[in-house]
Amino acid sequence: MEIAEFQRRIGDTYGERDVARGRPATVAWLAEEVGELAQATRKGTPAQQLHELGDVLAWLASLAEQLGLSLDAAALRYTDGCPACGTSPCACP
Amino acid sequence: MEIAEFQRRIGDTYGERDVARGRPATVAWLAEEVGELAQATRKGTPAQQLHELGDVLAWLASLAEQLGLSLDAAALRYTDGCPACGTSPCACP
Repeated sequence: MEIAEFQRRIGDTYGERDVARGRPATVAWLAEEVGELAQATRKGTPAQQLHELGDVLAWLASLAEQLGLSLDAAALRYTDGCPACGTSPCACP
Repeated sequence: MEIAEFQRRIGDTYGERDVARGRPATVAWLAEEVGELAQATRKGTPAQQLHELGDVLAWLASLAEQLGLSLDAAALRYTDGCPACGTSPCACP
């Protein structure tokens, strides 16, 4: 799936609610989901890890929506290799 | 850009380094970047917010790589509306 399409669907599904709750609440939810992903990474099953990866991605897309920014545009920073050293594989010291 | 293509590029650019550092280090970096995104959301410019959105997405993709999981597959959970109530817009109580 396209990153932009994913963001669009998240906006359609949760946009109105998330805007009503506000950005700080979205940041809090994102942090909560990152915590759940951290736990699943340490001791979860692959299915649980996949579930939490999806949740973090969804909250990240929701935050991008609220900021009026495109997650696809954000991804562009990494499409030509490491943005710091400009190569792939990264050759940063 | 496709989610799967983004993950592939992150794997090409950082995969070897990230695997050498291990999963806990990747989780720590992800948490750090989420903190930076939280700060940019509160008081950053749109350019800074876009930068941090990209960094969080990159570390999320790197973690998916290390877990041997597909971020694209993770995204599927949200493609037919809210996974909890099954509708879009979400109608959860």
